[in-house]
Order: sequence, then structure tokens, then C-alpha cells
Amino acid sequence: MPQYQAPLTDFAFLLNDWLQIDEHYQRINAAGMDSELALEVLNQGAKFAEGEIAPLNQSGDEQGCRLVDGNVATPDGFAAAYHTYIANGWNAMLGDPNYDGQDLPYSIAIPVHEMLNSANLSWRLTTMLTESTVLALTKHASQALKDIYLAKVISGEWTGTMNLTEPHAGTDLSLLSTKADPNDDGSYAITGNKIFITAGDQDWTNNIVHLVLARLPNAPAGVKGISLFLVPKFMVNADGSLGAKNSVSVGSIEHKMGIKGSPTCVMNYDDAIGYLVGEENAGLACMFTMMNDARFQVGLQGLGIAEASYQGALTYAVERLQSRAPQGIQAPEQKADPIVFQPDVRRMLLTQRALTEGSRALSMLYAKFMDIEKYTDGEEQAHADHVIAYLTPVCKAFFTDMATEVSNYGIQVYGGHGYIREWGMEQLVRDTRIAQIYEGTNGIQAADLIGRKLTRSNGTMMQATHDVFTDIANNITVAANQQQAHALLAEWHNLSQALLEANAEHCAAVACDYLNYVSYTLIGVLWLSMLDTLPNTANRAYAKGKIKTGEFYLSNLLPRAQLHKQAVEQGANAVNATELSDFIG
Amino acid sequence: MPQYQAPLTDFAFLLNDWLQIDEHYQRINAAGMDSELALEVLNQGAKFAEGEIAPLNQSGDEQGCRLVDGNVATPDGFAAAYHTYIANGWNAMLGDPNYDGQDLPYSIAIPVHEMLNSANLSWRLTTMLTESTVLALTKHASQALKDIYLAKVISGEWTGTMNLTEPHAGTDLSLLSTKADPNDDGSYAITGNKIFITAGDQDWTNNIVHLVLARLPNAPAGVKGISLFLVPKFMVNADGSLGAKNSVSVGSIEHKMGIKGSPTCVMNYDDAIGYLVGEENAGLACMFTMMNDARFQVGLQGLGIAEASYQGALTYAVERLQSRAPQGIQAPEQKADPIVFQPDVRRMLLTQRALTEGSRALSMLYAKFMDIEKYTDGEEQAHADHVIAYLTPVCKAFFTDMATEVSNYGIQVYGGHGYIREWGMEQLVRDTRIAQIYEGTNGIQAADLIGRKLTRSNGTMMQATHDVFTDIANNITVAANQQQAHALLAEWHNLSQALLEANAEHCAAVACDYLNYVSYTLIGVLWLSMLDTLPNTANRAYAKGKIKTGEFYLSNLLPRAQLHKQAVEQGANAVNATELSDFIG
Repeated sequence: MPQYQAPLTDFAFLLNDWLQIDEHYQRINAAGMDSELALEVLNQGAKFAEGEIAPLNQSGDEQGCRLVDGNVATPDGFAAAYHTYIANGWNAMLGDPNYDGQDLPYSIAIPVHEMLNSANLSWRLTTMLTESTVLALTKHASQALKDIYLAKVISGEWTGTMNLTEPHAGTDLSLLSTKADPNDDGSYAITGNKIFITAGDQDWTNNIVHLVLARLPNAPAGVKGISLFLVPKFMVNADGSLGAKNSVSVGSIEHKMGIKGSPTCVMNYDDAIGYLVGEENAGLACMFTMMNDARFQVGLQGLGIAEASYQGALTYAVERLQSRAPQGIQAPEQKADPIVFQPDVRRMLLTQRALTEGSRALSMLYAKFMDIEKYTDGEEQAHADHVIAYLTPVCKAFFTDMATEVSNYGIQVYGGHGYIREWGMEQLVRDTRIAQIYEGTNGIQAADLIGRKLTRSNGTMMQATHDVFTDIANNITVAANQQQAHALLAEWHNLSQALLEANAEHCAAVACDYLNYVSYTLIGVLWLSMLDTLPNTANRAYAKGKIKTGEFYLSNLLPRAQLHKQAVEQGANAVNATELSDFIG
Repeated sequence: MPQYQAPLTDFAFLLNDWLQIDEHYQRINAAGMDSELALEVLNQGAKFAEGEIAPLNQSGDEQGCRLVDGNVATPDGFAAAYHTYIANGWNAMLGDPNYDGQDLPYSIAIPVHEMLNSANLSWRLTTMLTESTVLALTKHASQALKDIYLAKVISGEWTGTMNLTEPHAGTDLSLLSTKADPNDDGSYAITGNKIFITAGDQDWTNNIVHLVLARLPNAPAGVKGISLFLVPKFMVNADGSLGAKNSVSVGSIEHKMGIKGSPTCVMNYDDAIGYLVGEENAGLACMFTMMNDARFQVGLQGLGIAEASYQGALTYAVERLQSRAPQGIQAPEQKADPIVFQPDVRRMLLTQRALTEGSRALSMLYAKFMDIEKYTDGEEQAHADHVIAYLTPVCKAFFTDMATEVSNYGIQVYGGHGYIREWGMEQLVRDTRIAQIYEGTNGIQAADLIGRKLTRSNGTMMQATHDVFTDIANNITVAANQQQAHALLAEWHNLSQALLEANAEHCAAVACDYLNYVSYTLIGVLWLSMLDTLPNTANRAYAKGKIKTGEFYLSNLLPRAQLHKQAVEQGANAVNATELSDFIG
């Protein structure tokens, strides 16, 4: 199994040369932040990812999680790595400084998150959910709840979970039936069953903070009758010490395709004591405040896996000797040439790399706007909000779809060995597959993009994003490339505007194609922009390969946008012409 | 987990209405064969696949294979199902009647093989390899070897294996180093290690016939020095009884992503006694005679899995209630509508079905030409040979690539449940993934198509295939459809002709795109042809849904051909502009 190495050179290029992060921090008044700090954090993050959790990735998959006397046992080494992680403050990177958080910019934290995903997605998941819990409590919990819980989930002394899904209520949360009955003391008795709960239990910490969606008595039907509750695994006394075990239990651990090192639990709440977070019946709104973050983070999981798969495939392609290259003998001293000289293998490697690095550029642009949203206010913040809203489903769905493609190429480059577990390439395919599903399936992301983000905002969010990409295009110095970028943006604008007139059924049928069209187009503009920056980059060897990769993207991958455009324009008819009887006739 | 039901209606349409199999059998003088017999065999095959092996698919995956005291133990029930299979003669469908084979046409056997793959790919694999062994012995073994072994592998009393791959010699067989030293009695002592040997051992039969590639002393280097040997697990006495155990042993069973019910073995040959099959140093030629068959059979694995995944997804989509359909409430008596009413779910289901049924049409056309090759001679047989040679890599690679896409849609329709093992959808993704790799990776298939089949035959095989599809197009009665079919064929012809001028490096870079271009185009012509036949089909309910599916293929999937065409024309430059230092700089 190839050793993961964090792509620090690529991050340095993106931060320093492409995003010009020092000017960015200055402009948004991110006090004390600069590129030196950023790269130092990334270096340390790389050490942790490469040295502490990457070595546990394969053994975690093989060992999986077990339920022992009602308690979850995670794979060997996972808990110890977590204790190192929180001791070194990684869990607190984004936390509120009033509760001992480090309050770092997203442009510093997000590269570290990508590395964690590359190194060990199963391990990373628990901390990601804890960060979502932090966000929810920071934005919506009462002062009293914050004072008890927030510092401990920021430091990682306790982890957090998100309890939304029920067996009959997945995509459609309006169907959920877990109930919350008021107790006399102002708390609530929570009763119901939740499924697919990541890290519903673990053996890392002595308490867990569950956030649970439930219905109050006489709450309105549908999503407007859902409230959010904090349900601790162990009750917390006034002095912060732990009290009795709450009535929360793990029913079982799911047997999954992948992320086997992450305990996905069926949770039973049986008159468990919970505390209201936010307003009554506003639980879904609370959830939505962290949806952008969680969905982007899932996109980042795809990106991390794609990087790991590309690295594995490249390592193998350089080592594996089979046949002679069609362009002529490359390694005359060997019995055969390394397969990296096979054009078809190069095509696969370039596809992996161009999709991965193009997606990484988009993720770092996203991080930049998360910073702007965090450090500015007023119009600038509102504009950043719009950009983030539009790009969130794009990042979530595109990065995870492309990760499935990229990691399957990773298997293919290995040939038969790619299918054998010990080589580690098939695990990446299995692990990343869930990212296309959770936090809203990619179909739901596409519906979100074409619905809430495009048509229901009457194009406002698209326009805000268009402004950003127009600025990027304006900065491209090579005239032909600038022209191409503007042409791409005009086409995207026109296609999006045309959809404002389409009905809901039409939009639903073409939503995934619209999302893919947008993704390939915008990443195309980013590659044109990076191709403009790369000739001035100090690391010439790195720049040379990346320029070739960008040119490959433009000639061999960007054309996919046209296929999706055609489907957006003409693909709805054949879908919507069908009746139920056409399927079950 | 949804119950597999063999697509007998679709097979009946393809055989009776579309291929007009009665006229076909008459024309090629397939004595005693008619559509009544064909459908009766298919009915019985469906019963076996649905009733005997489909129920073992999931348990076989969970249980896997074990090595106990050097012997392979297969999952519970696998051996008993095999004994039923051979008792009912299924193993002998295609066998030589001189050795108790049934000598059925391919157009009858291939649908049964597809069903076996849908029902339980792991179980099916062993019998597929035995059929390859039968083919090799029938065509190349001496009379003496045939008399001892052939009837037993045709009946299935013994199974067969193919031993090609060695750790350092996968795609490149020229590197293989297993050696064969002549013994005094005319046999050979075989010594070496083979990997990835399907059913290298099993607990189904009392003997196994291994076919092993090895080098004679002083054999020429490379592939021209490889010979084929028959190595029995147990020696066979003159009276047919079993003698001593041969020096063949299983080193280990591979831990794989899928097909876990199939024992993939590391085999050790240590002066094992073997017998030459065919001429000295002609082992690769012997292998090539069964390559078409084995590669097509792997394609059929993809087709079978795709069908199983589509059935599972459709069943779930009709049952699962989530949200309301965007076009309006569909099930007012329920709290939500079945997701089959969601346009995006329909898009996924239609993609699954259109790819699967389009591929099935191509597989049955292939079967028709296998029949022609079997029952005719002279020019007609040579023409069929060319068509089969051209279509083999197309079927192998396209069916298995599309199966990965289709089975991933199967997961996606299920949402989170698709990722959970008990629902069975993720197993299909894991099981089919190997089919893109073994019997030559799909990259090798593409190289075979654009190399040996297209350019090295100077277009002859493509032209023969073009003749066949031109006949099909000529029979389309709707003028616009006929015109479209001819336009597709002209474009394919021109693109192929242009490649005859391209150099090897260019062809290698665009080979996969050429294969995909050809696949989408030819299947497009077949859908146009089926759309012409369907209005005259007796089963109106079936025809209505299939017509919608064909129209979806033409509007939503056929455009993919243009993307691949563009890559064939323009995609080589960016690939071949790269140097090694661009990847490892």
C-alpha cells in the first residue's frame, strides 16, 4: 500500500501564488494570519495525517468496529491517535476563542481537513461530526448549554453526533417521528430510533453530545414541526463532572461497503433527557446553518480520497514493468517498460490528477469565501454567503462523484492487484462511495443547486458567483485564455438564466446534468487561471507537470461540460415522457 | 435484498421478434433447433438461476472461501447447487456431442449464462472457467488426452482452470517464467507460481483439470516460447480411476473487493506432472482460440450484474416513500410519493435499463454470429469470424464498464441503504468491478480493438461488422430512423478509416475512447432497429416501456458517442505531450 504524502507543494502554490493569501488576510483584516503561519500549520497537519492516522487506515478497514456489551469498540490505535489529535489542538482549529478555540481561517483549516480525509476517512469522520456539533451549539445553543458543553466539544474532550435519519425518513425529514415530551424541569424526554448515526458511540472519550431532531407534542406536521435537542450520553453535573448514564443506547452497528473503521450506529432513545437547542420547531433551520459546512466537508472527503488514489496509482505505474511502450522502448535495461509510459495509463493518471487538482482549486476558492464570510460583514459578507450557497452543492456532489471515478481509475492502473485488498486501492473506492450519499444524496445536491440556489433565488446566488469568476477571468493575462474563460462564463450565465423559466419537473430531470455542467465549466475557468499563474511559480519542476495537467483538462475533460449542457437543454423530455406503467408494465 | 427474476420477456422479444431465431436456425441448418426449444431451455435456466443460486449470492459473499488444511472450502450450498447444475446437464450445453455434450447454439446458451451471472457471479465463475477448459481441450488436445479428460469436464464431473498470470507477468505474458521439463515418459515436470487462479481448488468435485502456461527448456524468449500443459489435481489411471495427488497446491486465497464466494488462488506447481496441449511453443495461440469466448463471457458478467442492479433499484424505487414528486402529488393516500416518481430517479433507472437492454441486444447479435461461426463454413464462417473478432473487445469492455456505472446507480437509488451490505446493492458493485480487469483489462481490450482488430487487419474486421450493421439499418422501416442509423454507421466508418493512418502512440492514447465511441454508436443502431420491431410485438405493456427506454437512449445516452469521437480526434495530443518528469517532477 503506497504511503500517503500530503500535497504540500500544491497547497503552497494555491495559497501563495494563486490565491495570494497574504493580501487576502490583509484585505479581510484576519489579524495575525499570514502565509507563514498557514504553511506551518499545514506542515504540522501533514505530519499528523501521514504519521499518525494513515498507518491505521488499512488495519481499521480490516478490523472494523464491534459492539461489546452495548459499547462500541473502534479499531486498534484509533483512540490513541485521537488523543494525540486533541492534545495538539487540531480539533479546536475553527472553534470560538471564547471557548478555547483557535479561530483559524478556513483557508488554513480546510487543507488540513483534506489531508485527514486522504489519510484515513473512517477516523476523520468522528471529528468532522464533532465540528458540526460545535457549529450548531455555537450558533443556536443557550448560554447555559454553551457554558456546559461548548469548550469540551471544541477541545475534543467530548465528541458530537448528528441524529437526523430514521428508517422511514431519510431524504424526507418531514416524515420523522422521534418525539420530545417536556419534563417538569425544562428538559425533554426524547423517544425514538435513529439510523446511520456516525460515531453514535465510541471508545475515545468519556462523554458524547448527541444532537437529535424530534417533534414536540402538537408540533405542526412536516418539517415545520421539528426541533433540535442536545442529548448527552452521560448527564453532566453542575460542576462539570459526569452523572448517570442517559437512556441512549446503540442498537447495532451497520455492516457497510466501506468506512468500516467508523461506527455507523442505530441509536435508541428511550425517554432520554434532552435540552432544546434554538427555538421550538426551528430544528430544521438550525440544521441548515451547518448544512453548507457539513456538505462542503463531505465534498472534501471525495477530494481527499481522490488525491490518495492518484498518489497510489502513480507510485505503482512508475514501478510496475509490463510490455513495451508503443512509442518505443523506454527502459532498455529492463525486461519491460514501466506502465507509466503507456499512453492509456497516462490518460488515466492525467484524468485523476486534473480532476483532483481542479477540484482542490475550487475547494480553496471556497475556503477563501468562507474566510470572507467569517471576517467581513454587511454587503461583502452577504455576497460571500451567496457564493458559498451556490458552490456548496457543487463541491459536495462534484468532488464525491469525481472521487468515485478517480478511485476506480486507481484500481484500474493496478490491474488485478487493484482488486486485492492488501494493495489498498479498492478500499478507497469503497470508502468514498458513501460520500455521494450522506449529507443529502448527490441528486439532492443537484436539486438544491437548480432549485433553492438557482431558480428560487431568481439567479441571485448564481450572479454573485458569476461576479467572482468574472474577476478571476479578468485577471488572466493571456488574451486567448481570458477570452475562453469569459466565453465559458457567458455560456454558464445564459444556460442558468434559461432555467429560471423552466418548470419544477423539467428542472428535476436535468438537475444532475446542470450541476455537472457548472462543475466542469467553473473548474475549467480555474484551470485557465492557474495556467496563467504557473509560469511565474518558483518551483519549475512542479509547474511544468501541472501545466501539462491543466492543458489535459482543457482538451480532454472540459468537453464533458458540453455533453451535460446538451442534456440540460434536451434531456428532460425523454425522462418526463415516462409513466409508472413504462417501468412496471 | 430484491429477488432476481430472469428477463424472459426481453429474451423472448430478442429471440423471436428481433433476431427471428427460427429463420436464423433454418438458414444455418442448426438441425433440431427452434424458438420453442430455446424458450424452454431459457425457462428452465431461469428456474435454476432464480431458485438455486440466487439465494446463495449474499450468504456466499458474507461467508467467503477458506483454506482448510490446504484445501479450499467454498460457501455453504455452493457445492450442492453445482451438483444439481451438472445433474441437469447445464454444464454440457455447448459441449461436443462426441463427448456427451449437447451442442446447443450460442443463442440458447448465452441467455442462460447471463442469468447465472445475475443470480450469483461468484458461483458462476467456476463453470465459466470449466467451459474455457472444454474449449481448449476440444480444439487443441491430443486424442489420448481428450479420451481421458474431455467428457468429464463437459459433464462437469471435473472442473477446469486457466493458469496464466504470475506475480511479475500479468498483461505481459512474455515475462512468465514457470518451467516445464520433459520427463522420460513424455509428460513434463511443471514448476512455478501462478496467481489470480479462479477456482484453483474447490470442494465440488473429486478432480480438477488445470491448464497451465509454461516454458520448455531452451524455448525462445517472449510469448513465442510459451507452451500449454494439462496438469490434473489427481493423476488419472488408465481405467479412469483417480491415482496419486499431483504436486499442485494452493498457496493462499486472495482477499478481494468482491466475488468473495469464488476462491481466487495462488497456485504452486512443484515438479507437477503435466501433459502438452497443442504444439510446443504454441501455448499462446491455444489461449487465443478461447480468448474471444472467455472475453465475451466476462462481458456477459457485466451485463448480468447490470440487470440485477436495475431490478433491485426499480423494486426499491416503487416501494420507497420519500417527499412529493415535483410534478404534483402522486400517491395522495400516502404520506409521501414513491421515489420512482422523482424525475432524477427515473433518469437513473432509465440509464440503467437503456444501457443494460442495449447491451443485451448486442450480446444476442454476438450470439447469432457465434451460431453462424459454429454452423457454417467457408466465406460465411470467415465473415462471422471477423465480426466476432471486432465485437469481442467491445462487448467485454463496454458491458463491464457500463455495469460499474449501472450498479453504482443501483446504490444511489437506495440512498444510505445502498451502502449497507444487507440490501445487496453494494455487493453488485464490488462483484462486477473485477470484470473490468480480468481476461485483459479494459485498456487491453481497447488496445486490441484499435490495434489487432482495426488497424492491423487494415479495417477488414471493421468492414465485416459494418456490413452486418448496414443490413440491420436497411431493415429499419421508419425512414428517419433508417437515415439516422446509416448516418451513425457512416460516421463510424469514417472515424475508423482515419485511424488506419494514425501511429501506434496516437492509437494507444485514444483506444478507450474509440472503444466507447464504437459501443455507443453500434448500440444506438440496435436501439433504432429494436424501436422498429417493438410496435409489432404482441406484449404491448412490455413494448411501451421498452420504446420509451429506447427513446431515452437515443436522446440522453447516444450523445456520449460524440464526446468520445472528439477525444479520438483530439485527445491524444495532451496525453502524448507529457514526459515522465511531468508526473514525478
